[in-house]
Amino acid sequence: MVPDIRLDSSSPEPLYRQLYEQFKTAIRHGGLARGEKLPPTRELAGSLGLNRTTVAAAYELLESDGLIRGHVGRGSFVQALPDRLETRDGVAALPVAARISFSASRPSEMLFPLEEFRATCREVLDSAEATQILQLGPAAGYAPLRRYLLDQARERGIAGPDDDILITSGCQQAFDLLQRVFASRGETVLLEDPVYPGLRNVFARGGARVTGVPLGENEMDELARAVEKERPRMIVLTPNFQNPTGTTMPEPARKMVLEVARKAGAIVVENDLYGDLRYRGRALPAMKHLDRTAGTIYLSSFSKIAFPGLRVGWAIGPRHFLAGLIEAKQASDLHSDQLSQAVLLRFAESGRLAAHRGRMRKTGGERLQACLEACERELPARSRFTRPEGGMNVWVQLPDWLDACELASRAEQEGVSFLPGRTFEVSRPQPHSLRLSFAGLEPKEIRAGLAVLGKIARSDSGRGVRREEPALV
Amino acid sequence: MVPDIRLDSSSPEPLYRQLYEQFKTAIRHGGLARGEKLPPTRELAGSLGLNRTTVAAAYELLESDGLIRGHVGRGSFVQALPDRLETRDGVAALPVAARISFSASRPSEMLFPLEEFRATCREVLDSAEATQILQLGPAAGYAPLRRYLLDQARERGIAGPDDDILITSGCQQAFDLLQRVFASRGETVLLEDPVYPGLRNVFARGGARVTGVPLGENEMDELARAVEKERPRMIVLTPNFQNPTGTTMPEPARKMVLEVARKAGAIVVENDLYGDLRYRGRALPAMKHLDRTAGTIYLSSFSKIAFPGLRVGWAIGPRHFLAGLIEAKQASDLHSDQLSQAVLLRFAESGRLAAHRGRMRKTGGERLQACLEACERELPARSRFTRPEGGMNVWVQLPDWLDACELASRAEQEGVSFLPGRTFEVSRPQPHSLRLSFAGLEPKEIRAGLAVLGKIARSDSGRGVRREEPALV
Repeated sequence: MVPDIRLDSSSPEPLYRQLYEQFKTAIRHGGLARGEKLPPTRELAGSLGLNRTTVAAAYELLESDGLIRGHVGRGSFVQALPDRLETRDGVAALPVAARISFSASRPSEMLFPLEEFRATCREVLDSAEATQILQLGPAAGYAPLRRYLLDQARERGIAGPDDDILITSGCQQAFDLLQRVFASRGETVLLEDPVYPGLRNVFARGGARVTGVPLGENEMDELARAVEKERPRMIVLTPNFQNPTGTTMPEPARKMVLEVARKAGAIVVENDLYGDLRYRGRALPAMKHLDRTAGTIYLSSFSKIAFPGLRVGWAIGPRHFLAGLIEAKQASDLHSDQLSQAVLLRFAESGRLAAHRGRMRKTGGERLQACLEACERELPARSRFTRPEGGMNVWVQLPDWLDACELASRAEQEGVSFLPGRTFEVSRPQPHSLRLSFAGLEPKEIRAGLAVLGKIARSDSGRGVRREEPALV
Repeated sequence: MVPDIRLDSSSPEPLYRQLYEQFKTAIRHGGLARGEKLPPTRELAGSLGLNRTTVAAAYELLESDGLIRGHVGRGSFVQALPDRLETRDGVAALPVAARISFSASRPSEMLFPLEEFRATCREVLDSAEATQILQLGPAAGYAPLRRYLLDQARERGIAGPDDDILITSGCQQAFDLLQRVFASRGETVLLEDPVYPGLRNVFARGGARVTGVPLGENEMDELARAVEKERPRMIVLTPNFQNPTGTTMPEPARKMVLEVARKAGAIVVENDLYGDLRYRGRALPAMKHLDRTAGTIYLSSFSKIAFPGLRVGWAIGPRHFLAGLIEAKQASDLHSDQLSQAVLLRFAESGRLAAHRGRMRKTGGERLQACLEACERELPARSRFTRPEGGMNVWVQLPDWLDACELASRAEQEGVSFLPGRTFEVSRPQPHSLRLSFAGLEPKEIRAGLAVLGKIARSDSGRGVRREEPALV
């Protein structure tokens, strides 16, 4: 049903945006159901007394959000599941209409410290550097930011005197540059299996031979064998709170991987995107810190802590590796956006980042706790799940009789979404697994969402019993 | 000689930045000459009563600017010519110490409307969209900006109903994505010769077969033959105020290229980076507008008009081409920075961009005029130069007895820099050519710089005579 449209022509908000917002609300809250036809632009324009192009503009915004889809000659239809890749996690299946979404591994925008961000921008633009920031800059990144991050890394023992730093447009671009410089001729790249699909895809698209290795605590032997057999050019790991599993690699395993890589002459890429989000337990030394052979490249980013819409990440590693990456960066896009680099530097230097990080850790810890308790309570018997010490994701393995894609599709009808294990497969099928990204949800949403999942899963399995198996570590 | 360092410990500027600035000034103004050794960090720290790490931090900033260079065990030395690619134009030879630089094809930062930029940022961050802007966004770009640019393009006849738009991190990234999607398997790409090296490099690095074709007015036949012979996958052109030549392709030539490309099944890429900077003469229809066969992809960017440090460009073309580019964009870096997208949208929507563009055209026209008059007056006999109607560059062909690299090296000693033709070669050697990027200089600097070039060139050639040859059109 078409919503009751109320437009305010005295508002500074353009009419097409008002129209767009009202349709969006109607679609998101189910007032307009999937498959329902929108009125033709001419007709709606006539009934609202608008210019037809105004209605067309609103429809186009809806379409670019994936909320509706136009078919030539037939009109526009509501699209609960966008079929075009427009998600925030490199994955094609984020159900836009879900009320509780466990689908995106990212911070909640409700936690962004907007006032502090505004103040930071003002300070940057009022500074003597403002003009220089708005001019073209060096490929390796804004020098004061590079300096700051390198200092921080030195203090933590992650950078040494022979290391250099490159600012990238998020970690995703670091993966991309690594692929182009070190794995563009069919080289083998070893990844954790399961893994974040944006990471897998960038290497697979670039023509690398991608091999997945499970990296649980007891699977180190398998990694050693794979390295010996495959002679990879690169091993990409997320030792802290891996995406999607949430697991952390213990210190002995880190050392073992470094040793195996050194023997095989493979570059170790340590993706520490989530490392700052530890909610409990003791921080482990970075692989870059443990490595004494200049064979590791360390990646991180502001985006899981602060403002992901600002695309600023970085790579730290031996100068001889970094030189090639900096050259590739320049060919790719000259350099990363300097306004965002300068604003994030100021946000960090002013102490605001540390304060915000503290809040994110507290909130994240509460959300993780809520998620683990709800998993314990709601998931059917013989389910298992990881117990991360930080990050944004819990990995669930359902009992064998439950298919995670089936569950996803039924859950979506009840307004709850998550990504099934299939999304994260490298070499091993994951039909019974799923990822719960809890960090963007409040504890009450987490509980409600898991109650829905549990209800469906238990009804499917025909058993209302509680889980008996021990949890995965 | 080490400058007289004066540090103010009560200043909000950190001490290492003060130290850095004072060394920078000394190097740029010749107080510290190339090759001169800087005092060891320990020694300078002692004499200034500073912590050694403070001095080391300042040296590191100097090094990352390419102003000094450290040699293990020997110390740090002043480096007038940075040997590391840290320039603003994709080229490795910008002499940092030059007082008058014709080297960079970019707007002067002195012309940035900083107050208006600050106001724009405030409006964006105070708007209801602020939170959404700081969150992850869609790969194709920030929807309101896409909508705005597509509307503008429609009004100008550049976009039709079957076109889509992708926001890129500047035009450089658009080239990169085009290479990856359409020319990653050794396909032939036809470029103008000479051409901007960042464009040539991105295709050559990606493994395309790059062929250069001169595109002067009388060289259309050569293009037609090249297309027939080489069967290129893509033809990349800058029809308005090409970089480096400054020339504009006449309308009949545009139509002819489209026809030749259509017959050969080649994609035409129209790089319209400079199109908004027309200072005189009548605007010509875009090739994208003239093309009725959905075979053209149109590229543009804010960076030559407004704030190049904000990396926002765009590609408009048929949906079937754009779909692949959007996918490649997502694999590359998820999406372009959203803060910059939103700020530039607001800058445009508010009318500030149009006002600024007017000022840039006025200033640019004056600078072009000054450059052409000075070329006329100062260059030695038998020199020829283009007479652009817009853009940022004039292309000079010196008489055969003058080598442009020699001239560059002698001019640099007198504080004037430019890029010799060699920098822009594709298939044809350009030993006697050079590019004068005039847009970043004031008329008096342009006159002074050309007086220096003229003096050296005339003394080299042993003739003090004025030029007699007609100018290139």
